[in-house]
This record gives sequence, C-alpha cells and structure tokens, in this order.
Amino acid sequence: MEAHPKKYGVVLYDGFQLIDVCGPVDVLNVLSTHTDGISLSIISETMNPVSTFPRKWPGDMGMPPFTTSQTLQPTHTFETAPQLDVLIVPGGMGCFDPEPANVGKPDPKVIDPIVTFILAQYPKLQYLITVCTGAGITSRTGLLDGKKATTFKGAWKVIPLWRPQVEWIPKARWVVDGNIWTSSGVCSGTDLMFAFVKHLHGEKIANDIAVWMEYTRHEDSALDPFGIEVSS
Amino acid sequence: MEAHPKKYGVVLYDGFQLIDVCGPVDVLNVLSTHTDGISLSIISETMNPVSTFPRKWPGDMGMPPFTTSQTLQPTHTFETAPQLDVLIVPGGMGCFDPEPANVGKPDPKVIDPIVTFILAQYPKLQYLITVCTGAGITSRTGLLDGKKATTFKGAWKVIPLWRPQVEWIPKARWVVDGNIWTSSGVCSGTDLMFAFVKHLHGEKIANDIAVWMEYTRHEDSALDPFGIEVSS
Repeated sequence: MEAHPKKYGVVLYDGFQLIDVCGPVDVLNVLSTHTDGISLSIISETMNPVSTFPRKWPGDMGMPPFTTSQTLQPTHTFETAPQLDVLIVPGGMGCFDPEPANVGKPDPKVIDPIVTFILAQYPKLQYLITVCTGAGITSRTGLLDGKKATTFKGAWKVIPLWRPQVEWIPKARWVVDGNIWTSSGVCSGTDLMFAFVKHLHGEKIANDIAVWMEYTRHEDSALDPFGIEVSS
Repeated sequence: MEAHPKKYGVVLYDGFQLIDVCGPVDVLNVLSTHTDGISLSIISETMNPVSTFPRKWPGDMGMPPFTTSQTLQPTHTFETAPQLDVLIVPGGMGCFDPEPANVGKPDPKVIDPIVTFILAQYPKLQYLITVCTGAGITSRTGLLDGKKATTFKGAWKVIPLWRPQVEWIPKARWVVDGNIWTSSGVCSGTDLMFAFVKHLHGEKIANDIAVWMEYTRHEDSALDPFGIEVSS
C-alpha cells in the first residue's frame, strides 16, 4: 500500500490566481489536523513576496488589468525546495506572454524555470496536480503528452495549442490520468483537492473537512457546469 | 443613488483562515476588471507578514494544530490605513483565547486592536462585511447589537456567547442587516461576496465573474446546508 504523501508543495509566480492556490492549500491546512505531519512548501524563483499581479499585464487578451493584488511569501526557491511527494501548479494571468505579438502564448520567462522544476521533481513525485492554466504550464514539460487533461475554460481557445500532444478534455471539472490530476479553472481546484483528499484518506475525512469549511463539493469530475461544448 | 464603493480593506491577524480572506478577495480581484478603480488594502497591526497560524494554538477546542501555514503581506497598519468604503473582517482560529482557562472565549490581545479599528472606520463605511468567526470579533464592537447576524457553524456553541445582544441566525448562508453583511463559516464568505457584487453591480457582472472563476454560487442566503437545527 502506498504511503500517504507528506510533503506538499505549490509553485508561485507573479500573476498566479489567488484562489487557484488558496482554495486547495486551505483544504490542506485543514487536512493537516486530520493526518500526521504533512508539510507545505511555497516555492518560487526567489524568496521575494510573490504577487497576484503579473510582471506585465497581458493586455491583448480582452480583460483589463486587475487594480487589486496580494502577495504571498515563499518558503523555498526552486533551488532550495525539498523533494516533494505532491506538487501543485496553479494558473493565472502571469503565464501568458505580455508581448502583443505573442498574445495567448506562454511566457517563457515565467514558465521555463517552472518547467525545469517540475521535470526535476517529477521522477520522485507521488502526484502532480494542476489548477486552471497550470495545466498549460505543465503541458510544456511533455509529461501530459498522450494523457487526458483539462484546464481553464476561459482560455480554451489558446491553452490547448500550447501542447496539442495532450488529449485536452473540454468538459470535466477535473481529470485524473495516472498520477497527474488536472482541474478546470480557478475554483475547480478546490473540488479537485477534496476529491484528492478522498482518494488518499477516504470519504469521512474529506466530508469532515468540507463540513468544517462549509463547502459544497462538486463530487463528479465529469459534471462540468463551465465545460466547453464541442460540435461534432 | 449611492456611489459604488471603491476603497475595500480586509483586516488580517495571525491565525486568520486563508479562504475566509482569499475567497472574497479573489472575487474582488476579478471585479476590479469590471469596474473603475477599486483598491484593496490589507490591514494588520504591523507591516510584518501575517500567518494563518495563530500566535498560540487554542489547544482545548478539540482540533489539533495545523501543521501547514501561509503568510500574506499587509499593505497598511491600523494606523496607516485609509478611510475605507467597505471593511471585511475574516475569521480564524487566531480569534480564540489560547489560555486553557479561557477556552472558547475571544482573545483580547488579537481582538481589541481590531475592535478599535472597526469602530474608528464604521461611521464612514458604506458596508461592513464579516466572514466566519469574523462576526464574533465584530460583535465585540456592539455594532451588531439588536441586529441579525450569522457566523461559523463549527463554533456555534461559543461565538454567540461573545455577544448575546446580537440576534444570531443559526441557519443562513449569509445575513444582511442594514449595511452589515455577515457570512457563515469559511467558504460561505465567497458566496456572500458574489451576492454583494450582485447587490452593487447587478447580476450580469456577478455572473460573468462566477463563470470566469468557474464558481457555482449559493444564491439563496437562507439556504444553509451547514446550518444548525434549533429545537423548539
């Protein structure tokens, strides 16, 4: 029987979406009162506070810039992070190239160091989890090639182009393929994390956490109220 | 016609619950792309990063300590914060007195400076919003006396005792009384914030934000899956 994962980590970059990170992470905070000794590392390029505002707003994507932002404090850099059991890659506007000529494309300045980190961690990970456009970032590793995955429905026209070798699922709250779990946009990551806790620790603990957090779970991964209709 | 509020602020203290803050705040981040020039101040006693772990864990409340925690960066102290239009007071384990003799009681070291700040802000606030045990903190101001309010259902046996002059509602996702909006526990604050956005900016903007965030709203404030049954 597989040992429960203990060492969780989440990658941050300027322009991460707050709930992509804080939804799943707060489920883990409460899980930590139900199971022994889990840790969570918050990992970024440097130890500077990381902002929800991108290094430069991708202006040509039809959405004006946020006028509010917050910063989270990393605990590790990509160099100092421990080997993890579970790595979470969130989405956010920071993953898009801000150059008008590259509208809708991945920003290599942001993504390349994360791709290198995922590839270094993956061989010893028990699970890799993505939220929202975090699947787009992760697709650039090649680890999703030939696998089923989903992503943010609000960027469905651009993210799947980042790696056509992935079997992108247009209607799914989240998708599990092997040890890689990918969720749809923003708030769907919280449902993925509850399903993940149930997978590892059983329904009672998942339900106890949901009741404490007063959270109504989406429990069916295939039922996606925001899914994209694909004409046949 | 009342002008739309522009200046939002959220109070932080060690031991705030991550989603209490980040759920509503991320709705505001996305709202900021739909309306002109809103700001959000993150306000604490000092400019030091504020942790989701309390200054001391309240050990006698039947829940072992979190083994994971995160820190958010304030933008202002209680002294430097601007006059706000909307103030949000989140809940969290940090509001409980960690002394075993005072189990379930408010921690004056944490709460008193917040109470002072709320009272200084309230006369010029357009709205006061609480999430989870933030209603308990806010009740200590006396501003909820004679008003309807709700709070975290997981602490229903203790929080209403903090201020019996409040008409505590045991079954409500959130409650509006005058210009004070109080939500139930943890994740219910996100539903309150969507309802608040709808109240201010209309259903279309609230729905557009929910679709972008892939969030299924609880839209009925009276429908509370985690409400307390009161025997008559």
